[in-house]
Amino acid sequence: MIKFLDLYKINQNHKKELLQAFERVLDSGWYIMGNELKQFESNFAVYCGVKHAIGVANGLDALILIIRAYKELGLFKDGDEIIVPANTYIASILAISANNLVPILVEPDLSSYNIDSKLIEEKITDKTVAILPVHLYGQLCDMNAILEIAKKYNLKVIEDCAQSHGATNEDGTRAGNFGDAAGFSFYPGKNLGALGDAGAITTNDDKLANTLRALLNYGSHEKYKNKYKGINSRLDELQAALLSVKLEKLDQETEARREVAERYLAEINNDKLILPKINFRKSHVWHLFVLRTVERDRLYQYLLSNNIQTVIHYPIPPNKQEAYIEWSDLSYPISEQIHSEVISLPISPVISASDVSEVIRVLNEFK
Amino acid sequence: MIKFLDLYKINQNHKKELLQAFERVLDSGWYIMGNELKQFESNFAVYCGVKHAIGVANGLDALILIIRAYKELGLFKDGDEIIVPANTYIASILAISANNLVPILVEPDLSSYNIDSKLIEEKITDKTVAILPVHLYGQLCDMNAILEIAKKYNLKVIEDCAQSHGATNEDGTRAGNFGDAAGFSFYPGKNLGALGDAGAITTNDDKLANTLRALLNYGSHEKYKNKYKGINSRLDELQAALLSVKLEKLDQETEARREVAERYLAEINNDKLILPKINFRKSHVWHLFVLRTVERDRLYQYLLSNNIQTVIHYPIPPNKQEAYIEWSDLSYPISEQIHSEVISLPISPVISASDVSEVIRVLNEFK
Ligand SMILES: Cc1ncc(COP(=O)(O)O)c(/C=N/[C@@H]2[C@@H](O)[C@@H](OP(=O)(O)OP(=O)(O)OC[C@H]3O[C@@H](n4cc(C)c(=O)[nH]c4=O)C[C@@H]3O)O[C@H](C)[C@H]2O)c1O
Ligand SMILES: Cc1ncc(COP(=O)(O)O)c(/C=N/[C@@H]2[C@@H](O)[C@@H](OP(=O)(O)OP(=O)(O)OC[C@H]3O[C@@H](n4cc(C)c(=O)[nH]c4=O)C[C@@H]3O)O[C@H](C)[C@H]2O)c1O
Repeated sequence: MIKFLDLYKINQNHKKELLQAFERVLDSGWYIMGNELKQFESNFAVYCGVKHAIGVANGLDALILIIRAYKELGLFKDGDEIIVPANTYIASILAISANNLVPILVEPDLSSYNIDSKLIEEKITDKTVAILPVHLYGQLCDMNAILEIAKKYNLKVIEDCAQSHGATNEDGTRAGNFGDAAGFSFYPGKNLGALGDAGAITTNDDKLANTLRALLNYGSHEKYKNKYKGINSRLDELQAALLSVKLEKLDQETEARREVAERYLAEINNDKLILPKINFRKSHVWHLFVLRTVERDRLYQYLLSNNIQTVIHYPIPPNKQEAYIEWSDLSYPISEQIHSEVISLPISPVISASDVSEVIRVLNEFK
Repeated sequence: MIKFLDLYKINQNHKKELLQAFERVLDSGWYIMGNELKQFESNFAVYCGVKHAIGVANGLDALILIIRAYKELGLFKDGDEIIVPANTYIASILAISANNLVPILVEPDLSSYNIDSKLIEEKITDKTVAILPVHLYGQLCDMNAILEIAKKYNLKVIEDCAQSHGATNEDGTRAGNFGDAAGFSFYPGKNLGALGDAGAITTNDDKLANTLRALLNYGSHEKYKNKYKGINSRLDELQAALLSVKLEKLDQETEARREVAERYLAEINNDKLILPKINFRKSHVWHLFVLRTVERDRLYQYLLSNNIQTVIHYPIPPNKQEAYIEWSDLSYPISEQIHSEVISLPISPVISASDVSEVIRVLNEFK
């Protein structure tokens, strides 16, 4: 079986350093908000080219906390609206609802799967306070257009970078450094994955960073003094230390993903299959390699019977989830089409060239 | 310096097993919601004598999720009231506010520091839906009285067991098995401490457990199907594996704490110092050994100058925190007195007999 993602193998490549990091943290006697966290935050800030990186417990919390911080700073309030793609992992949307703000879904662009920037302006109302673009599957959104709209209407831009660590535009700007703040996930399967749940927020805004640091720590800047009604969402010393190990090789691993993607793009040749399109090589970090086909379910079974494991990202659109029953009458045809047609091929820094060849061979024989 | 808590030493006692557990999890290739979590949940359920133990990200989330689950089940709603001690770590109260319910503070009993069960009934209104007793410092609350009131008024009882792992009453019932549900923290400094943030919920209620399992996982019972607008609050495989190691020795470590406490109780002899009182030996697990004195700040400095590190749990009462500015006019004189008089002595399973003797000697010489 060719695995969709061989996390065992990915982490074995770092095994020696991960064991050392674990023992170092164990022996330090310090497990929460210490030097390992500081070091990782500083490493990750440099990596993204931002002023502040702030470790948090996971990617959903990162987004929840950003919105919450803007509420504490008096910029957002209950009932305000945030524009978000209709085609995304549901966490992007949950973060808005969790803060009692209203997610306003915008259809994606069929060629990039990302939010269609041409459809944003018509959704802006007096209540709109932010745009939350998601760099889905690893590819940057059309950030020039989005930032221009945000400027025109005085909206915050909150990037969801859960799938796009290191994605870079022509100017060298990286995901997490386009908007006012960004949320990252280090879920184990992400391009930069911890050995458990983990996440981070990046921002260049000192005041926001300062508010966030209290909100994630029970609302406390200083021990036993609670300024806000905060939550507990800290990045453990342990995961921070493990992430520092893996961050060192991230660009190398991303390059390996790009090489796999480039083979898929060049060698998959089947009229039934629609391949992803990219403009600028570095703007995609290939967290997922997503094909489209009208015969998606048959393709899934066909690949499985050929010992190739794939995953559907995602089978049910957010507006059709029971959690958003209030949206069940709304229709987002492009997003719904994507949800019914996409399939994610095996891709990772550790997949072998022969496995890639086999995936290509089998796909080209799909009739 | 005699440390307040030597976590380095505590964890070194488990070092071999912790290293093994880490390597086992690393090599499994599986880091979220797998067998280590199942195993720990089952171990911890047995330990507490309950039907369900559910791993979560931390102790605050445990309480937040319980209240949230009762909201999803239609039993609690925004604006409902929950009775909680005025003298507690602020997280107990934050969990209520985070759910848009109203914390109703009740004064503690000066002899136990726990909620005064005689003062609960007068605070019950039509809006009261639950009592949230906190077994503070490691000592069980007066659960018979609390459960009786809850029964009379049809209220849920949500125990905060962050400080009371394994505390047991005369019948052998353990903390976490008295009420309808309970929240535990495995913050590193807790009696059962992970190497990072971690927590659990215990309950005997199948429906509640089932709802909780979805709420903590983005609202999802089944992958990619979201029933609720949930959060991300999972206990990592890694922390679960480390906790299983430490759980095996918990009772032994608690016994060591009891022996230290018993020496303090027997040998500290100074009119200026008020010692804690207990009824039943096993009803206290001595997470903290808390003295009271009107000269608290002087005692703190005196001990420090004698190389004895202490901590104040807690210096500022919740009703005087900026986060609860709406309460700044309210007055809870007993809770406020406690906050101004308490001081926590060094106690742990690893403190040496000679260090305990030294603490006693220095305290007895305090004039
Ligand atoms: C845009 C966006 N915004 C916010 C978020 C929220 O971030 P979060 O709170 O950090 O999750 C996400 C999260 N996004 C992901 C989401 O994309 C989805 O990812 P997925 O690819 O379906 O993940 P998966 O199937 O669990 O794992 C991928 C593969 O890896 C294998 N595996 C997995 C694990 C965990 C393992 O230990 N060992 C393995 O071998 C199994 C699968 O084959 O589900 C996750 C729970 C979310 O964190 C997002 O995409
Ligand atoms: C009743 C109640 N309900 C809910 C909660 C919420 O649970 P939580 O969300 O899991 O925190 C609590 C949490 N309660 C505790 C709270 O009691 C307080 O505990 P504390 O004793 O002040 O903790 P501390 O000073 O950070 O650590 C104690 C000693 O241990 C040392 N130490 C500490 C760490 C972390 C380390 O790595 N190495 C060390 O050597 C330093 C100190 O000398 O603050 C914590 C952040 C909370 O988790 C509670 O008490």
